[in-house]
Amino acid sequence: MLTLSQKAIEMPASPIRKLVPFAEAAKKRGVKVFHLNIGQPDIDSPECVMEAIRNIRLNNLAYANSAGIESYRKGLAGYYNKIGIDVDASDVIVTTSGSEAVLFAMTVLCNPGDEVVVMEPFYTNYRAFAIQTGVTLVPISTKIDNGFQVPPIEEFDKYITNKTKAILICNPGNPTGTLYSKESMLKLGEIVKKHNIFLLSDEVYREFCYSEEPHFSAMQIPGLEQNVLLLDSVSKRYSMCGARIGCIVSKNKEVMAAVMKFAMSRLCSPTVEQIAAEAALDTPAEYFAAVKAEYIHRRDVMCDMLNQIPGVFTPKPMGAFYTIARLPVDSAENFAKWMLEEFSYNGETTMVAPAAGFYATPGTGEDEVRLAYVLKVEDIKHAIKCIEEGLKVYPGRK
Amino acid sequence: MLTLSQKAIEMPASPIRKLVPFAEAAKKRGVKVFHLNIGQPDIDSPECVMEAIRNIRLNNLAYANSAGIESYRKGLAGYYNKIGIDVDASDVIVTTSGSEAVLFAMTVLCNPGDEVVVMEPFYTNYRAFAIQTGVTLVPISTKIDNGFQVPPIEEFDKYITNKTKAILICNPGNPTGTLYSKESMLKLGEIVKKHNIFLLSDEVYREFCYSEEPHFSAMQIPGLEQNVLLLDSVSKRYSMCGARIGCIVSKNKEVMAAVMKFAMSRLCSPTVEQIAAEAALDTPAEYFAAVKAEYIHRRDVMCDMLNQIPGVFTPKPMGAFYTIARLPVDSAENFAKWMLEEFSYNGETTMVAPAAGFYATPGTGEDEVRLAYVLKVEDIKHAIKCIEEGLKVYPGRK
Repeated sequence: MLTLSQKAIEMPASPIRKLVPFAEAAKKRGVKVFHLNIGQPDIDSPECVMEAIRNIRLNNLAYANSAGIESYRKGLAGYYNKIGIDVDASDVIVTTSGSEAVLFAMTVLCNPGDEVVVMEPFYTNYRAFAIQTGVTLVPISTKIDNGFQVPPIEEFDKYITNKTKAILICNPGNPTGTLYSKESMLKLGEIVKKHNIFLLSDEVYREFCYSEEPHFSAMQIPGLEQNVLLLDSVSKRYSMCGARIGCIVSKNKEVMAAVMKFAMSRLCSPTVEQIAAEAALDTPAEYFAAVKAEYIHRRDVMCDMLNQIPGVFTPKPMGAFYTIARLPVDSAENFAKWMLEEFSYNGETTMVAPAAGFYATPGTGEDEVRLAYVLKVEDIKHAIKCIEEGLKVYPGRK
Repeated sequence: MLTLSQKAIEMPASPIRKLVPFAEAAKKRGVKVFHLNIGQPDIDSPECVMEAIRNIRLNNLAYANSAGIESYRKGLAGYYNKIGIDVDASDVIVTTSGSEAVLFAMTVLCNPGDEVVVMEPFYTNYRAFAIQTGVTLVPISTKIDNGFQVPPIEEFDKYITNKTKAILICNPGNPTGTLYSKESMLKLGEIVKKHNIFLLSDEVYREFCYSEEPHFSAMQIPGLEQNVLLLDSVSKRYSMCGARIGCIVSKNKEVMAAVMKFAMSRLCSPTVEQIAAEAALDTPAEYFAAVKAEYIHRRDVMCDMLNQIPGVFTPKPMGAFYTIARLPVDSAENFAKWMLEEFSYNGETTMVAPAAGFYATPGTGEDEVRLAYVLKVEDIKHAIKCIEEGLKVYPGRK
């Protein structure tokens, strides 16, 4: 029978991407669409990245090592060493994007039915990888009203059952910008150790922390070396989302040997983009300083404007480059679609990501959207103005 | 508990790659290693590919569309049209390598426990993707003694149960070079239609057919449009294995919509390599003619040399660029390892892929290896000479 698999049926269309055809249609009608739906910064990749691509003088675009180009793995280890993470090249396997890192981690650790505890709202594609691997995501709810603060870490204990294989955190958090303090991380480490489970730490936004405290990695928790898998990506760090280069880092040799088997099965990550990612390691500190200042400015403009719209509320995120906003609407998804299909203001409109797909608890986040502050301030002003004007006339306004 | 998943335990290390550390060690000892273990041609990628990479003038290495860069999808449709496959861009989704195409196909179509019928020996990583998706591969055995001929197609009928979701073919075949005639394909179509199952057709070696008859694609079987998924890759066609660009092609809109959900979950395939793959569409016909002539020459040299070694037998493959050889040894795996660890001849040795991992039937192919004729003739001569000399002194010689 020509039927689809259960996984294919269960798999939701990505809330970040599924309205893209409506945005394309709007553009065809001549409407300018501001993309706040996706973490695609308009910030240039570092010049050294694009230069490395232009300077490639290979005659044959050959397979790389399944674990990644050796010099790149060494370079990555050096990058981690500099930020206080004690690893060497053998602790690093290059993956085809952070997505593959998450998928490999779940595949290698979890049997179908195993549970992974995760704070919600969470990066929506965790759900996709959980469906692919049969993992049950167990959400710990955080609330927009208190700025999606990390709940008292002791509470994590309550969510752990004999099926729990791992806790998955995203720090800084997509979509909330939530940061884990060093103290929280150490307490989390105690819980992980007590239950002897894995800690999967997605730190792809590490460079974008807006608090005074430096970022504290899960890899820095003492005595937790066998439990932690760091999931990483160059996409956001160097504004090179299209490279699809990430990595898994762990001191657990058994886990890494298993990851390697899956890495071998897909042969390698893209060669040219690995060369570009290796070049990115030479990005000067000034690049990050400028980018960080820019994101803080964008965040402040976006959040201030949003909070001045009647009925709208967004907390101020302390990391990454997203914020969740609550809108006075019947359904954020309907609103998002309507903004693309029916609305424009001075020939412009805004695409947002409905936030319900970032929650595992049914019925949660229905009036929330995720907004990425990845466009230049002038564009953000136009984009939020469109939302403001749209809310004035949206038929499903509450 | 810090245990691995069942899939991680079941997953075999790739027979193509798992001995790489021994090859590296041999190189460190100063031994030159000829890599016949992997389909990594030493043939240059087309000049237009490398030129396109050098000419990239993006400032921001941004995400591409999840289905692939639109102009590339259109270009791919044009490529298929030219070879008699009637599709348009909406029938094509770009994947991150042929590997992802196979993985997506199994994920979207098969529930755990579903069966996929496949001729053995088959491309070893089919097994890896079957393990990842819980698919049971049901092998139809073909034999080295009759050159791995396709069995009478009627026999496929016997392997189909109520759990069969698809037949998976590789045409031309890796690792055997087996070609399906047009007549065989039409008969296969009848069986597929009769049982109303899917036909997954891996045609990544399409350009490397050495018979008079032109390649006949599964997409060309009349009336089978809803059943066929074409799985493809640019890796071999343009000698750009490191690009990791493939695609799924199907007229079945329901299947493609499901594939698209999984494609969105990993955001996109690498942007630079898609640009390179699009440029590859302009590869001149002379490139293929020269490459094909070169592979025929390499095949003839390799097979003739192998068959002159006492106790060795290999058939003459009619497509792709591999051959399976039977060796007079206790265990091809032990021999392959020994060649890297213990043996060298004039400072040289050869890495081969033990073939057992290309079979699903336990105990099969234990004295066979897969050899890729991807090196220049002079190197092939040295590589096969090493095998000849190795066999003379290998302690496990039969």
